[in-house]
Amino acid sequence: MAIRSDLALEAVEAFLQRQRVEEAPGIQVDREEKEGEILIQRVKVVDERGEELTGKKKGTYVTLTSQSFRERRKDQQEKLARVLSREIQGLLPRSGMSVLVVGLGNQEATPDSLGPRVVKKLLVSRHLAPKMPKDYEGELGTLSAIAPGVLGQTGIETKDVILGITKEIRPDAVLAVDALAAGSIQRIGSTIQLADTGIRPGSGVGNARAEITKEALGVEAVVAIGIPTVVHALTIARESLLAFLQQKNQFQDNLDAFLEEHLAPVMGHLMVTPKEIDSLMEDMGAVVAAGINAAVHPAVAREESLL
Amino acid sequence: MAIRSDLALEAVEAFLQRQRVEEAPGIQVDREEKEGEILIQRVKVVDERGEELTGKKKGTYVTLTSQSFRERRKDQQEKLARVLSREIQGLLPRSGMSVLVVGLGNQEATPDSLGPRVVKKLLVSRHLAPKMPKDYEGELGTLSAIAPGVLGQTGIETKDVILGITKEIRPDAVLAVDALAAGSIQRIGSTIQLADTGIRPGSGVGNARAEITKEALGVEAVVAIGIPTVVHALTIARESLLAFLQQKNQFQDNLDAFLEEHLAPVMGHLMVTPKEIDSLMEDMGAVVAAGINAAVHPAVAREESLL
Amino acid sequence: MAIRSDLALEAVEAFLQRQRVEEAPGIQVDREEKEGEILIQRVKVVDERGEELTGKKKGTYVTLTSQSFRERRKDQQEKLARVLSREIQGLLPRSGMSVLVVGLGNQEATPDSLGPRVVKKLLVSRHLAPKMPKDYEGELGTLSAIAPGVLGQTGIETKDVILGITKEIRPDAVLAVDALAAGSIQRIGSTIQLADTGIRPGSGVGNARAEITKEALGVEAVVAIGIPTVVHALTIARESLLAFLQQKNQFQDNLDAFLEEHLAPVMGHLMVTPKEIDSLMEDMGAVVAAGINAAVHPAVAREESLL
Amino acid sequence: MAIRSDLALEAVEAFLQRQRVEEAPGIQVDREEKEGEILIQRVKVVDERGEELTGKKKGTYVTLTSQSFRERRKDQQEKLARVLSREIQGLLPRSGMSVLVVGLGNQEATPDSLGPRVVKKLLVSRHLAPKMPKDYEGELGTLSAIAPGVLGQTGIETKDVILGITKEIRPDAVLAVDALAAGSIQRIGSTIQLADTGIRPGSGVGNARAEITKEALGVEAVVAIGIPTVVHALTIARESLLAFLQQKNQFQDNLDAFLEEHLAPVMGHLMVTPKEIDSLMEDMGAVVAAGINAAVHPAVAREESLL
Repeated sequence: MAIRSDLALEAVEAFLQRQRVEEAPGIQVDREEKEGEILIQRVKVVDERGEELTGKKKGTYVTLTSQSFRERRKDQQEKLARVLSREIQGLLPRSGMSVLVVGLGNQEATPDSLGPRVVKKLLVSRHLAPKMPKDYEGELGTLSAIAPGVLGQTGIETKDVILGITKEIRPDAVLAVDALAAGSIQRIGSTIQLADTGIRPGSGVGNARAEITKEALGVEAVVAIGIPTVVHALTIARESLLAFLQQKNQFQDNLDAFLEEHLAPVMGHLMVTPKEIDSLMEDMGAVVAAGINAAVHPAVAREESLL
Repeated sequence: MAIRSDLALEAVEAFLQRQRVEEAPGIQVDREEKEGEILIQRVKVVDERGEELTGKKKGTYVTLTSQSFRERRKDQQEKLARVLSREIQGLLPRSGMSVLVVGLGNQEATPDSLGPRVVKKLLVSRHLAPKMPKDYEGELGTLSAIAPGVLGQTGIETKDVILGITKEIRPDAVLAVDALAAGSIQRIGSTIQLADTGIRPGSGVGNARAEITKEALGVEAVVAIGIPTVVHALTIARESLLAFLQQKNQFQDNLDAFLEEHLAPVMGHLMVTPKEIDSLMEDMGAVVAAGINAAVHPAVAREESLL
Repeated sequence: MAIRSDLALEAVEAFLQRQRVEEAPGIQVDREEKEGEILIQRVKVVDERGEELTGKKKGTYVTLTSQSFRERRKDQQEKLARVLSREIQGLLPRSGMSVLVVGLGNQEATPDSLGPRVVKKLLVSRHLAPKMPKDYEGELGTLSAIAPGVLGQTGIETKDVILGITKEIRPDAVLAVDALAAGSIQRIGSTIQLADTGIRPGSGVGNARAEITKEALGVEAVVAIGIPTVVHALTIARESLLAFLQQKNQFQDNLDAFLEEHLAPVMGHLMVTPKEIDSLMEDMGAVVAAGINAAVHPAVAREESLL
Repeated sequence: MAIRSDLALEAVEAFLQRQRVEEAPGIQVDREEKEGEILIQRVKVVDERGEELTGKKKGTYVTLTSQSFRERRKDQQEKLARVLSREIQGLLPRSGMSVLVVGLGNQEATPDSLGPRVVKKLLVSRHLAPKMPKDYEGELGTLSAIAPGVLGQTGIETKDVILGITKEIRPDAVLAVDALAAGSIQRIGSTIQLADTGIRPGSGVGNARAEITKEALGVEAVVAIGIPTVVHALTIARESLLAFLQQKNQFQDNLDAFLEEHLAPVMGHLMVTPKEIDSLMEDMGAVVAAGINAAVHPAVAREESLL
């Protein structure tokens, strides 16, 4: 099918809706939580049936939903950074791990620049460790970061860059930050997905690359943090037709086939992003960086304001 | 209606299609031309009936269509710059006019940054005139340029900025460059519209501002050069439903009302732009600047390559 | 003389030192103040003798000196913004004036980009006035802003741009922000000069342009805010030779002539800026914008943190 | 001594001048060549005596001198790119090598951004090799590239990043591009140094890091390409005093000690760069990238224009 989402939650919801069922095989849906206006949903893909159904790998997916980016409300973004920080810690096997952040994506392409933007705002500390005074122990964790660029800029598979660096500096965990594709225009700028399953760079923008997993890298954990910034134009078409059919009480057996045959030739592989993408990226980059800084550095977490 | 296009040609085509007629009252459609792969279409809005029908002011609208931006083909972009240069000259009342280029839009918002990008690439010459050696007469025209920013950045209506400057430096003509909204996703990055009707800054992105016309500015001509960079998400919905209905031989009386009622609440005022907007803007800015430089400066026009 | 400074204080100090006197004719030096680590010095050029001696126009010059930029200390920058805000208010004839900020300089040239950077960070409000709810009266002042670019970018004298806009929107006062040239490398990034004398755009970087004064613009006040970001390489040479001669108890009658004859041919018109200019500009832009925002908007001034 | 140069040629010249000799032990100076206005000088550091004398490692240093950047002459920059391309090939052990370009430096600091700028303009091809049609063999070489950022941004020694990547992708040769510090203000923007000796990242801006050599990386060659963009302020002081003393026929035994004692406290570790650094960097980045592209890709080298 032409329409793709990088969000596990969307895949599960689409299945439940399509099948008009309450539960999906191989999927475990946790109780939702609300923290202020932030909705926290946890989904586990537990076995192969779940993997096939969602197209996502086994593991835990945490989805944070908030309108704070679209509405540019700083106070809510502050709260989101705090929740994000806690959820990152929740997906790391233990506290005090040394962390390498990998900022995936292309800083020259605004909707794909989340990773590089986050890296620029991190408080890296790994190089300071040897000179750190005694008193600072327990204040700053060990954080390093790199934004390796994309295959078209480097000629090198991102996995090879990360693998090479990981072998040299041996972090305990890798955090991979990336822009994602959503299956619904509503999700853009309103969702953060965390996963403990690793990442496939480029999957969000069309090309699957070699996977970056904890096994591949030889680290204890790979946590992926992603925010949807683009949707297929076909996704908007699909949403519109579904709304139309529902309204008319019509039923279309093979909507995806229709889309593929009659709209894909017109809309092609076009992916779109909101007109306000520059300011969205600025805010998103700041919140994700703040969440990571607070998750790694106790001294940052204690500050009143993270942003 | 929620869906808006800044392209006169789209307005005319929509009317003809809706009414299943061949001609529109108050509109004069010229013979199309092809120049290589570039399609040149000329439409005149000749009276009030045409104004009402299109929502566009009386005057001449030239639409250039080319796939050179989307396909990033430099040779075709070169040809497009050449055609653009000629069409700009065609809309100016006479040759040798002193020209002020106004780059409208917000350089901090990628899809709205066409104007400021063009200004950065212009060969301004107005300040050189007093020191120009005799031999250069007839080589360089008189070009000045400003990118005044948008109302939200300056607190000043763009028209007031332009009017104030125009009164001080008295150019013969003003060229206003701006990013536009299209009524079809196909138009993004494939169309350049020229018009001799002046411009309303902000109309392309939602807010109508005071008009910039030759009468208002006291100049001989105001030529607008625009490229669509955004569409309403509702536009994509509309295109999809039209394709669906046509395919099913269904007919929907009041599609726009349906969109307004059932999809506008979901998609809101969201406008979208292609994921590749950064590289599109770079190429578009270069072509428009090259077209203007060649239209104003004979020495540039004689060069083998404009880009 | 080849070596030039845009700082009135430097001109006065140089005269006093050269003449080995305590007072300069036509110059009135006020008592210095200290506010924390910030030194505040006020100099008045009172008549023609003072003008000739300093090369600066009649009026009040306030010089703030602080190491907060070079040392990147945010707490001190916060205090500096507060003092700057108060001094801006001190140079405006009355409170509640509507203000147009003009950000002079070239945003494409890092050391010359102070003005455009400041404009990007201002809270412009002039366009909001008609829609402002009653309760907001007395909260937000009337602020507009423009960064017109430099002559080489626009082909238009900056004065003409400012004059044209001023005639249209009629502000009570104009604040002109610009990067300056200092006469000593120590001054770069450590000094803010305010003056109520207007400004000559481009004087800081080599070319004198038409003056921007309250008389020329027809406004009640023109306050200039400048920070030195460059020095002539010859200035460094001069400082070095003076130190050498002093140390050797030698005396050089005509040091400037020597510099002109023997070093100018080698160093030419080269002006230099510190290697760290990007981060300096970022901090300076933020402090100046914060000072202006707080000077104009009571609601901003009441906030705990300006930056 | 506080004053440092990254240019081997300057070190040799300083020695010859200081000692008033014609030859330096352990140094071999080749005949100079002129190619149009470009001066090509080759110096070999042949043994330990040469290393001690210059502070540079054994190997070949090629210095290209041209005023094309300062004077912004595109035709001369074109010629410089051509000569650079040939000299890069001359320092590589054989043709057809797969090359990894490492763009050292900090893209957020203009005078230190040469490496990242060059990387953005390279025609990377390594990832295309598997899909390359037969006809393209011999047209495109194998080029990959990365701009890893600096220690303060990543928390990782640059050497570790390069070493890790090199082990994964096994290039035949590494080209390291970096901004340098010169010992004379004349050298900024007028010199390109090539060396087959490897590189120490950060040496150009104050901190020595682990060396990047062919032995350390396990590749056949490491060629360094550097352009001076900064000088110590003390360097300018030194040049000025030397000129003064020479003019006065005075002699100062211990000039460096004087500088250290009397000027270093005032000027500190300040390094400066020309006011025009933004446009200089733009041109330099384009020329170095063009030189590399032409050195690696036969199809590029055959084009009429490299820039």
